[in-house]
Amino acid sequence: MGFWKNLFTGSESISQSQNLDYNKSPIIGEKDAASQAVSLPDRSNGRIFFSTDRDIDIYELEELCNAVGWSRRPLRKVKKAIQYSFLVVSMWQMRGSQKRLIGFARATSDHAFNATLWDVVVHPDFQSKGLGKALMNYMIKKLRSEDISNITLFADPHVVDFYRNLGFLADPEGIKGMFWYPD
Amino acid sequence: MGFWKNLFTGSESISQSQNLDYNKSPIIGEKDAASQAVSLPDRSNGRIFFSTDRDIDIYELEELCNAVGWSRRPLRKVKKAIQYSFLVVSMWQMRGSQKRLIGFARATSDHAFNATLWDVVVHPDFQSKGLGKALMNYMIKKLRSEDISNITLFADPHVVDFYRNLGFLADPEGIKGMFWYPD
Repeated sequence: MGFWKNLFTGSESISQSQNLDYNKSPIIGEKDAASQAVSLPDRSNGRIFFSTDRDIDIYELEELCNAVGWSRRPLRKVKKAIQYSFLVVSMWQMRGSQKRLIGFARATSDHAFNATLWDVVVHPDFQSKGLGKALMNYMIKKLRSEDISNITLFADPHVVDFYRNLGFLADPEGIKGMFWYPD
Repeated sequence: MGFWKNLFTGSESISQSQNLDYNKSPIIGEKDAASQAVSLPDRSNGRIFFSTDRDIDIYELEELCNAVGWSRRPLRKVKKAIQYSFLVVSMWQMRGSQKRLIGFARATSDHAFNATLWDVVVHPDFQSKGLGKALMNYMIKKLRSEDISNITLFADPHVVDFYRNLGFLADPEGIKGMFWYPD
């Protein structure tokens, strides 16, 4: 359980953070990945931490996804998707010795040019506090540190403006996001 | 050089093909992946084969991409992208003992839910013969055989109809493809 061993002891804004000694394994994160703290506007909510550790309780993650209304998914597949994502970021609230999973995002990638973000979620109790933005900026920073220049995602209509405010462009130069589903 | 060792001896339409004994390694393909043949409408063009072998001459691939007007990319990154893609499919023309790379596509994936297609290209000399469609159907079939249900891509405006004809939906339920580029 090395999850907390790299926790910063001070509360620190992600925008002022030092360069972390990222694990340079083919897939970002793993056991020794550094966690990072970010200040919350409302201190009563405790401290918020980010982690790239993949050792996440799948049940806790699916509870989080359920809280925002996503449909249940086979846990075996969720586990596999986490294993084979290029980057997995979880966001935690810490109050005293209690920690709670309050946000999550992951990215697939070819480790060279492109990354695609999936499963970006912030618990409803923690929305509208700038934490989604902090989570995304953390993802972008990590991907940029791996020399990924093309960061992509598929945004539901109600979050298009959220991503636009973060610098994402919808349909740049007429490029269309397209989906193929089984019949 | 195990590239051709699994070639089918007969020319065979991809739509009638048997179930191949796909390599079940975490990443589809590798050395022992099966190749597959498809009939061309114009027999004078020789026989066309598909392969999931990643042992592709990067220079030949970049020449192919150059032929459709894509800008040059660092070969080191192209090589890495091929290595870390979930699925890599190349399309070859064979005339006698000569083989020529005439098409290419690859997909990133979380190995569970989603795949995203990148670098789909067919040489201009071989366009408008149904080969792009055959290449895409081959990709889709391979991804489906790995239980990937959500196949996505970002289509330039001039190929949106091509993908639509293959069953891809643009912006389904208002979902927007979005891009973040470095400043």
